Amino acid sequence: MTEPTWPRVGVLGLGTMGGAMAANLARAGFPLVAWNRTAGRTAGLEALGVGVAATPAALAAATDIVLVCVSDTPDVETVLFDPDGVAAGVAPGTLVIDCSTIDPAATRRFAARLAAQGVAFVDAPVTGGSEGARNATLAILVGGAPADVERARPVLQAIGRTVTHLGPVGAGQAAKAVNQVILAGTYLGVAEGLVLALKAGLDPAQVVEALSGGAAQSWVLANRSGRMLANDYPLGFKVALHLKDLGIALAMARETGAVLPVAALAAQLESGLVATGHADDDMSALARAIRGLSGLDT
Amino acid sequence: MTEPTWPRVGVLGLGTMGGAMAANLARAGFPLVAWNRTAGRTAGLEALGVGVAATPAALAAATDIVLVCVSDTPDVETVLFDPDGVAAGVAPGTLVIDCSTIDPAATRRFAARLAAQGVAFVDAPVTGGSEGARNATLAILVGGAPADVERARPVLQAIGRTVTHLGPVGAGQAAKAVNQVILAGTYLGVAEGLVLALKAGLDPAQVVEALSGGAAQSWVLANRSGRMLANDYPLGFKVALHLKDLGIALAMARETGAVLPVAALAAQLESGLVATGHADDDMSALARAIRGLSGLDT
Amino acid sequence: MTEPTWPRVGVLGLGTMGGAMAANLARAGFPLVAWNRTAGRTAGLEALGVGVAATPAALAAATDIVLVCVSDTPDVETVLFDPDGVAAGVAPGTLVIDCSTIDPAATRRFAARLAAQGVAFVDAPVTGGSEGARNATLAILVGGAPADVERARPVLQAIGRTVTHLGPVGAGQAAKAVNQVILAGTYLGVAEGLVLALKAGLDPAQVVEALSGGAAQSWVLANRSGRMLANDYPLGFKVALHLKDLGIALAMARETGAVLPVAALAAQLESGLVATGHADDDMSALARAIRGLSGLDT
Amino acid sequence: MTEPTWPRVGVLGLGTMGGAMAANLARAGFPLVAWNRTAGRTAGLEALGVGVAATPAALAAATDIVLVCVSDTPDVETVLFDPDGVAAGVAPGTLVIDCSTIDPAATRRFAARLAAQGVAFVDAPVTGGSEGARNATLAILVGGAPADVERARPVLQAIGRTVTHLGPVGAGQAAKAVNQVILAGTYLGVAEGLVLALKAGLDPAQVVEALSGGAAQSWVLANRSGRMLANDYPLGFKVALHLKDLGIALAMARETGAVLPVAALAAQLESGLVATGHADDDMSALARAIRGLSGLDT
Repeated sequence: MTEPTWPRVGVLGLGTMGGAMAANLARAGFPLVAWNRTAGRTAGLEALGVGVAATPAALAAATDIVLVCVSDTPDVETVLFDPDGVAAGVAPGTLVIDCSTIDPAATRRFAARLAAQGVAFVDAPVTGGSEGARNATLAILVGGAPADVERARPVLQAIGRTVTHLGPVGAGQAAKAVNQVILAGTYLGVAEGLVLALKAGLDPAQVVEALSGGAAQSWVLANRSGRMLANDYPLGFKVALHLKDLGIALAMARETGAVLPVAALAAQLESGLVATGHADDDMSALARAIRGLSGLDT
Repeated sequence: MTEPTWPRVGVLGLGTMGGAMAANLARAGFPLVAWNRTAGRTAGLEALGVGVAATPAALAAATDIVLVCVSDTPDVETVLFDPDGVAAGVAPGTLVIDCSTIDPAATRRFAARLAAQGVAFVDAPVTGGSEGARNATLAILVGGAPADVERARPVLQAIGRTVTHLGPVGAGQAAKAVNQVILAGTYLGVAEGLVLALKAGLDPAQVVEALSGGAAQSWVLANRSGRMLANDYPLGFKVALHLKDLGIALAMARETGAVLPVAALAAQLESGLVATGHADDDMSALARAIRGLSGLDT
Repeated sequence: MTEPTWPRVGVLGLGTMGGAMAANLARAGFPLVAWNRTAGRTAGLEALGVGVAATPAALAAATDIVLVCVSDTPDVETVLFDPDGVAAGVAPGTLVIDCSTIDPAATRRFAARLAAQGVAFVDAPVTGGSEGARNATLAILVGGAPADVERARPVLQAIGRTVTHLGPVGAGQAAKAVNQVILAGTYLGVAEGLVLALKAGLDPAQVVEALSGGAAQSWVLANRSGRMLANDYPLGFKVALHLKDLGIALAMARETGAVLPVAALAAQLESGLVATGHADDDMSALARAIRGLSGLDT
Repeated sequence: MTEPTWPRVGVLGLGTMGGAMAANLARAGFPLVAWNRTAGRTAGLEALGVGVAATPAALAAATDIVLVCVSDTPDVETVLFDPDGVAAGVAPGTLVIDCSTIDPAATRRFAARLAAQGVAFVDAPVTGGSEGARNATLAILVGGAPADVERARPVLQAIGRTVTHLGPVGAGQAAKAVNQVILAGTYLGVAEGLVLALKAGLDPAQVVEALSGGAAQSWVLANRSGRMLANDYPLGFKVALHLKDLGIALAMARETGAVLPVAALAAQLESGLVATGHADDDMSALARAIRGLSGLDT
């Protein structure tokens, strides 16, 4: 009796998130090939025995499962469908897993185009940030056909802690958009509360502690109030990326008829943060906008 | 050596919160007198050996510590300063503890008027709801002079789990206002996220579970998403009371120059809930407003 | 046959608005007495033959019609009901006209207290600004019993161009609140449009001209876009006063169940303008807030 | 000496706006060819002597100036660049005028693609509604190279009253977006004011009249308050189209860093109106949302 064969996995995109996923997949024992748009991100991975492909098409031709982790909808379209993209090299029967956070409607279109080539598709955006990617503690939100999701599961379990199958292709992206909308309100609620505490002359750190056991409790209050009080916003999760994700959520909302006034306000404030040079701040910099309006830092 | 004498405590206001506090104080062994504006709330307490006073003045004359737990700023003013109010009967050296949620500026005025009679004052609003009051697990936010707070502490420890001294008189109320502002954003964020999930055809309970381990985690998501999804809002904490508290927070914000756009929006939506007959819903009914705007229940 | 006697008129409050009203009443021929909280505002009026009273009580005792023009609800209460206020000197049969902009509910209470002394009351807040006061072109919004309004009319026609009787006591103030709410949206709409024009690299003055003949046309676009584009906000109408008026409107809205999200947002932004030192800017400085959020002036 | 030759004009899109423009061009004497995606819109035009083309390509081949008037960015892309679109039939030297309201960035891309074929392009979105189109009183906002705009001017003057050249290609669309943003605030301001008037028990028509001479004056107050008070919203300008235009403005804002909180709120409320079956209401139906939140119509 032969041992089960480990699928060959290719990782497209070696940024903070994709690079950490690739390292965790290599450590878990998957035969791995990687590719990045810009060179020089593969050095650490080659030390782990990871092969490097010249193009997404070459990577797809050499693997059973292609994991994509890039920035935005057009980036996914590029790595999948450009002349040297996945679709140009992929064999029928391959599975594409997209861990990027992109538009659910575009996701369904991409999946349909790949299906016409006999290629399966699962969307699998993640939450948990760079720390979660490094420690393989991501929460992974999955959309796809049940059999495809089961096939993706061992790969996903090597990079995250929880894998939730939420429905057909696009459902993972839709759930990720829900997450970003909840964050908008929670961050703004905490930011406004802390600005009021500062203005009222309270010791805000003491207020945070006093409120943390009650109904105001949240991950944001516990983990991001310090940055808001220091008015210093190291990463984290970039304002510009959350703004991109709110753009996806607001487009979904418009298509489906959901009314999201707080998410829409957060997008405006984040747009202003980008316009004032704070695109790369952690998204807790929403507090910077509230502080500025209130005259705290002028 | 004599045993320390337990102070005689009077409780003014036997609503859901005050009644539960009185019961816990009686069980803890404090000699207790109670009063309520409307009769018929004292039956259960008399079975616990609690005396009943005819007026706040009479109650104050018979006790060392007066604990007030009524609805709003004018109610506190009434029980303290009406012709048969606390000030008409109180002896110098008495301590008044106000557990109501009211305006911090009015709190400072009331304390100053009592101080002129030699009466000490501590503001001690609470969070944790009716359940916290019943189980003596409230978080208590305290403002006052250090010696007065220490004197209040045994009483407060009998009705709550954490007692945080946040500064001089009014600081407890200010911290409570901060709490209500944070709630506004967190509830609206969760409500908007869930409406988007429903509109996108996701199983929202599954989404809640998938997101609960990440940055979207909050007490509200864990404990109030069920009501929002059922569109049914049993108590809890009434919309009308949270609206009253946001009124306090927004007045503080105007005085101190804090800019609170989400809290202001929440107040408008809650005002609309009151106008449409939902004043007594739990405040998670903010989701009712978002659902209605999105056409979910029409 | 004798000529009709002109009523003796007293003016309480000689600020920008009240001073101009007094001058117009004197020019129209009314026998006039004036009073101001702080001295030194009566010089110009004395040259017009206006008498000066030592207190509101003395002024009321010497006149048939008392016109009040002060800043806010507490100021009106003070000049009417302080120990040397109107109520202490007024004879039954006198008419009080309040041209201040204050709370409609407080207005009804004040009218009721004066009615108990046999004194009639009309609320008559104005729009049209300092220019309208000087040129007697104010629009005057009147609440009161029909006979009282007819009695007030000759006085009001001497200080304004249109006099509209809108209902019982308080109706004038309610209509003024409506005016301030409409302004909030119109100013913010123009401010946002102009900031977008600037950001898009258009010549905004040309855009204003091109749009002025269409559905975007408004007094604000025609008369305040220049200030917004120059980011310079001379008076006009102070931010702090519009914020006070929005406070009245939002309190009315809460009492009556009107939901005003844009007015609530404008109040937050104006609160921030006050906090950042712009209380005395013209209210077109709402554009300052939108510009600042967009990084135009940093 | 020969008379100047009138250019042959083709009109693509015969909806409410394009149909009226075509009729006015025919009446002005331009030799005219028309095309519409769906048949049956050309009957009235044929009576005016207008020819009908089978495809946009055929129309372009037969004319000197092509005027496009369709709904949205993808529609313009379709009529220009589909296999039987304008680009497939057009001769070098032709001028394309786009009177649709679409995205300025897409406009610049379309113009560049046509320029590669030697075809000139002018964007010329309009304001003034169906009435303005019928009566040739539109305000036309034009972007393009000066010579191209001068060439377009006689055509534009036949369909509108004012023709403003605002800058290079895209500037007309950008100015139109500014217009739609100003409308958002003005409509919401009027809607909130009228709801407050209704809730306060005022006669709102009388309030409108009293306020119309002052700072609250606007085209919206004068022309749309009646619909808002009747809660009946016949066309006009469709909610769904204004929502589309706000989508363009908000995308521009994000690209350029303009912060538009009121426009963003209006888009959310309009999205809700679409979700609740009111897409075809006049955009004054923003008042429907404010009325509904305030419980006026339940």
